[in-house]
Amino acid sequence: MERVPQAKPPVGTSLPRVDGVAKVTGRARYLDDLDAPGVWYGATVRSKVPHGVLEGIDLDPAFDWSSAVVVTAADIPGKNVIALIEDDQPALVAIGAHVMHVDEAIALVAAPTKALAMAAAKAVKPRIRVLPAVFSVEDSLAVTEKLYGDNNVFKQFLIRKGHAEDAEIEAAIGKAAQVIEGTYYTSPQEQMYIEPQAMMAEWADGRCYIVGSMQCPYYVHKAMKPLLGCDADGVVISQSVTGGGFGGKEEYPSMLAAHVALLAHKAQRAVKIVYERDEDIAATTKRHPAFVKSRLAVDASGEPIAIDVDVVMDGGAYLTLSPVVLSRGVLHAAGPYRCPVVRVRGRVVATNHPPHGAFRGFGAPQTTFAYERQMQKLAIARGEDPLALRKRLALRSGDTTSTGQELGFSVGTDEVIGAIESVAGKAPEKNGIRNGVPVRRGRGVIFYFHGAGFTGSGESRLAGKATVARTVEGRYEVRSSSTDIGQGAITIFTQIAAGALGVEAAMVDVVDPSTAQVPDSGPTVASRTCMVVGGLVEKAAKQLKARLAEDPRPGEEVSVTLQYEPPPGIHFDDATYTGAAYPCYGWAACLVDVTVDLDTYEVTLDRCVQAVDVGKAINPHIVKGQIEGGTLQALGWALLENVLYKDGKVMNANMTNCIVPTFADSPDLETIIVEVPYPFGPSGAKGVGEIPMDGPAAAVANAVEDALGCAFDALPVSPEAIAASKPRWRLS
Amino acid sequence: MERVPQAKPPVGTSLPRVDGVAKVTGRARYLDDLDAPGVWYGATVRSKVPHGVLEGIDLDPAFDWSSAVVVTAADIPGKNVIALIEDDQPALVAIGAHVMHVDEAIALVAAPTKALAMAAAKAVKPRIRVLPAVFSVEDSLAVTEKLYGDNNVFKQFLIRKGHAEDAEIEAAIGKAAQVIEGTYYTSPQEQMYIEPQAMMAEWADGRCYIVGSMQCPYYVHKAMKPLLGCDADGVVISQSVTGGGFGGKEEYPSMLAAHVALLAHKAQRAVKIVYERDEDIAATTKRHPAFVKSRLAVDASGEPIAIDVDVVMDGGAYLTLSPVVLSRGVLHAAGPYRCPVVRVRGRVVATNHPPHGAFRGFGAPQTTFAYERQMQKLAIARGEDPLALRKRLALRSGDTTSTGQELGFSVGTDEVIGAIESVAGKAPEKNGIRNGVPVRRGRGVIFYFHGAGFTGSGESRLAGKATVARTVEGRYEVRSSSTDIGQGAITIFTQIAAGALGVEAAMVDVVDPSTAQVPDSGPTVASRTCMVVGGLVEKAAKQLKARLAEDPRPGEEVSVTLQYEPPPGIHFDDATYTGAAYPCYGWAACLVDVTVDLDTYEVTLDRCVQAVDVGKAINPHIVKGQIEGGTLQALGWALLENVLYKDGKVMNANMTNCIVPTFADSPDLETIIVEVPYPFGPSGAKGVGEIPMDGPAAAVANAVEDALGCAFDALPVSPEAIAASKPRWRLS
Repeated sequence: MERVPQAKPPVGTSLPRVDGVAKVTGRARYLDDLDAPGVWYGATVRSKVPHGVLEGIDLDPAFDWSSAVVVTAADIPGKNVIALIEDDQPALVAIGAHVMHVDEAIALVAAPTKALAMAAAKAVKPRIRVLPAVFSVEDSLAVTEKLYGDNNVFKQFLIRKGHAEDAEIEAAIGKAAQVIEGTYYTSPQEQMYIEPQAMMAEWADGRCYIVGSMQCPYYVHKAMKPLLGCDADGVVISQSVTGGGFGGKEEYPSMLAAHVALLAHKAQRAVKIVYERDEDIAATTKRHPAFVKSRLAVDASGEPIAIDVDVVMDGGAYLTLSPVVLSRGVLHAAGPYRCPVVRVRGRVVATNHPPHGAFRGFGAPQTTFAYERQMQKLAIARGEDPLALRKRLALRSGDTTSTGQELGFSVGTDEVIGAIESVAGKAPEKNGIRNGVPVRRGRGVIFYFHGAGFTGSGESRLAGKATVARTVEGRYEVRSSSTDIGQGAITIFTQIAAGALGVEAAMVDVVDPSTAQVPDSGPTVASRTCMVVGGLVEKAAKQLKARLAEDPRPGEEVSVTLQYEPPPGIHFDDATYTGAAYPCYGWAACLVDVTVDLDTYEVTLDRCVQAVDVGKAINPHIVKGQIEGGTLQALGWALLENVLYKDGKVMNANMTNCIVPTFADSPDLETIIVEVPYPFGPSGAKGVGEIPMDGPAAAVANAVEDALGCAFDALPVSPEAIAASKPRWRLS
Repeated sequence: MERVPQAKPPVGTSLPRVDGVAKVTGRARYLDDLDAPGVWYGATVRSKVPHGVLEGIDLDPAFDWSSAVVVTAADIPGKNVIALIEDDQPALVAIGAHVMHVDEAIALVAAPTKALAMAAAKAVKPRIRVLPAVFSVEDSLAVTEKLYGDNNVFKQFLIRKGHAEDAEIEAAIGKAAQVIEGTYYTSPQEQMYIEPQAMMAEWADGRCYIVGSMQCPYYVHKAMKPLLGCDADGVVISQSVTGGGFGGKEEYPSMLAAHVALLAHKAQRAVKIVYERDEDIAATTKRHPAFVKSRLAVDASGEPIAIDVDVVMDGGAYLTLSPVVLSRGVLHAAGPYRCPVVRVRGRVVATNHPPHGAFRGFGAPQTTFAYERQMQKLAIARGEDPLALRKRLALRSGDTTSTGQELGFSVGTDEVIGAIESVAGKAPEKNGIRNGVPVRRGRGVIFYFHGAGFTGSGESRLAGKATVARTVEGRYEVRSSSTDIGQGAITIFTQIAAGALGVEAAMVDVVDPSTAQVPDSGPTVASRTCMVVGGLVEKAAKQLKARLAEDPRPGEEVSVTLQYEPPPGIHFDDATYTGAAYPCYGWAACLVDVTVDLDTYEVTLDRCVQAVDVGKAINPHIVKGQIEGGTLQALGWALLENVLYKDGKVMNANMTNCIVPTFADSPDLETIIVEVPYPFGPSGAKGVGEIPMDGPAAAVANAVEDALGCAFDALPVSPEAIAASKPRWRLS
């Protein structure tokens, strides 16, 4: 197995994406490209009302039902739940049960063609007794209608640092030289993956085979067992080539998998569903809209003495992943700044909106927007340079976070702030004329962090596994349930394994994730794939290399499977929310220059620089792509993205009105990769997937405030919002 | 749709293989990589005797039959035949019917695992009453046992040119100044594709879906209709990524498709069979061994006055494609040389060997070996330079072939001979010492031709179709049943279509061939894919471009489907075997230098230069690959490849003893691409797939004769054959 060392080591080089050519040449087979003998097409009958009681389901007798099947909750062989955290969400609303949101699935149909299936879906008529609905977090907290438990609160968290009993918080704030207060609102956001949700199921020998577009095969596997009433062997989940996820394919695929599995069971044949774009936007999960109230108290020298944050998120109609999203939101809410006394309260509440769910950043972008707006206001109030202020207050090794975690290794604070300082240059001239129109220019800077891997003790509970094998043919295989959803998992696993094995990248195959083929590595979420699973791959590959050196056993399979163990000293107490919330953090700073057109109120992004500490860039080109993709999503969220609900229904469920930035909207993104190695990550790597999404929205709002001289505390900072704020910045 | 003309036109450049990255990185999905819910594995129960009557089939009661299915001929829903040319070959030997060869399929089994299926196959015990068998063409022609019709002759052909009645032939030969006579033998050859035969079937709604490794989806489609008793819609055939064919996946896949279809029908689930290497070598088709008797009569000036050739091929146990193989053999048998009087007789006869079948060159290599050995003997007899002799006698525009076809365009005789002349240099020193061992060196040259496309009127009867479409998404699709079997069809179709449409190659998709998706373009054989189907693609793409220029209809599919029409003046009379045997020919010359080790009798290839007129190289790199691959197959056939039968059974059915050349056996092949355009091919291209296989074996034999001074008229020219000839060349 000994090889000549390679001139170009695979880790740290920009190996072209292993799956790239197939994708750009159209040969990659997405779910819609897959076929099965005799496959039928499914469609979903959805509620048109936000809240009510399902009294019955009628089939239009004018429709020819002879070549269609209809599935209702009565057809579910097991429990009518999508198992995730709590079992509150049904796969289909049962007769007599509550409809909780518009576009909730009530029945399913399948037919030999998609057109026939859609016609059949229209011929299914649910009868629903309408109940009053709840569309705001205020009404939810006031319990105008009971949607969940007694108080409509899905989950609450409380973080206290220092003497942060309620009275002491008020006392500390009372003593402060200055208190910065604000209430911030961030809007719901659609993931807008290129490939809509898509899934196909087929039964054989009483076993259900499901293939589709997804991030987490084992989440779907877990959800199918109670629903189908089977054991772990009774269902096989395989990922097909997936055209983007961004969190949108974390939990929702379990719902779609349930639907195709039930249809395939009843139709006794393969059934596939590929959502239309409007259905996908309207019915699937989006980023939680959030309200954050913040108080930041500083002494006369500008040193923080207390931070108090209250986060309320709209969870939508079912609990889904909201507790975890909220958890991540509150864990980041105090920001990467030192402060002896911190209180963070968080609640996520039930409404009759479609459930909100996972989206890149996972709660942190909402609270990051708030704390970086607060920091900006502090800088303005003190007349201090915004970047200098952050540099002065930022956490470094030896400091403690809001949960009392003492930071040790891999804290890239000075490196990322220094990188921004070194390229910042002069701020743009404030007033100007562009194309004959008066404009105002401004600059925003921010500093932020993002925990890598699962929150709290999550990684220890997950205990993810990965396998590296030398096959009988003499090639190498990486087997994990981590999916490539466009972020480059296949390529970086190839590089990590090849590097650790000392073989060429072309000798390594990353196995397509199927629960019949790969161990459970945990979900492909939370900036954990490279750091946690990649770390297992690196370690397993090294052990395999050593084992083969001792005893090569050609013609036999030799494999090493490892299970994640937390680094020494990483403990979190879920009861008190204290301790090491994450094994490590990514650190970032961002600078944005904007021009505001005073005729159209359009904001143009003139410049956006992100410096991100990723530990180690396994593949710099892919890391850059991750940072730039996340940054553009954040810039879109800042300026133009939004999901508009009316009476609980998405009003802009198309790409023409639910807009996301295109390349034309993007400035030339300047990306600075900073590498402060994390000793327990593969070659020092930590997470990068989510962090670039967290910060830039605040940088944009800060820049627009800098340009116009008044605060923008709600997203998006749209022309309409700027127009509405005109009385405060009007040219004299 | 207008685009800026490209700096690098797609045709004539070496676009990297569209399917290359997926193949070298292991992501291409061959049949063995495909899965289906609940799939079972099939295995085949085969005869151990070469000839007999199947009296019964017993199931071993000691085997647990509860989780296996057994299929016999009684389970066939339609006719028990593999429809091809004649319906003489059954899918499975029926009880009471004749077993015709060792390893003939008698029954099939399927079980949940491959190991269980193989165990089940062993537990099926056919009872066969043994009959006398026929293993030689002499015994077959003497009808020691009736195997086919009254005379055991599957097919015979007779070509006469000039006054070639039998008496006149003898008269002409009687008048000759010199008559060169010889009897030549060429051995059977295994295709040795990297991927063994592999197929999977599944039924849904009474329709059979078959996917697998194959060259000709519509051949399989044609064969399944009578077998399964269904119409054209009752069966769908799809090619999976195919790891080589070389003719071996032309007709045999219909047999394997029949087997998996029958198993899937009985097991009511998907069933796949992937042959083991030994089963594949033993049971599937190989190149026909052939005996060729030749007489070449010349006048005193060395001008040919008559050629008389008698070809006898061993067809094996069933007719399969033998008539077409024989046809191609006789059509090339007189060689590319002018001669006023020609008689070619050909017979292919039945034996109890497994059926011989399609293999690159398709009969022509056998007769090319004979005529180029004859030319060599003529050169020696006349003391004339071998290449000068060929140049003197070669066909050129205006000359007529043995079928009376007057050659017009695209005759590259002078170009290919000139190319060899210009690089030939001095012949190697005859006697020498290498590594302390005495050696003899020699040079062989040859000139040869190969008809492109189907023989005779075949293309007109096939009337192949191809479609080029602009899809609703604005991309372009090529739809044809031509398969990529490693020869580059996907890539050259991409180039041809992109070139004709004036779009980038990345905008063109070549659709995976499935009979549900693509028209019947005819089979992927006979050096016809680029010239005939590629020609349709080019024409259709041009018409599509013109149509879109007139009326772009964005968002709609616009497509052009064309059907092949023979070029003007191309007519062949099947009754008299006269006329234009092919629309055009490829032309080639080859030079080989060898060293013969006088201790081990090993022949080392020191040099091999091929100059081949391909009309136009659509992709020079792929054309070079085709030429070098074919050349190496020919060099292997010349020196080391062989299939050894004993009592009708293949005795060397493994890659350790049925050897093919490796890179270590290959000289640095020198390849000269000559382009004499064929006006009816795409950008002037004609066939290249087969021609490089036809000639080099004779060049090697000529070179060894040159080295040792005695004739080698049988293949392979193995160390054993050289040892046996030692009395004729012994060092004095």
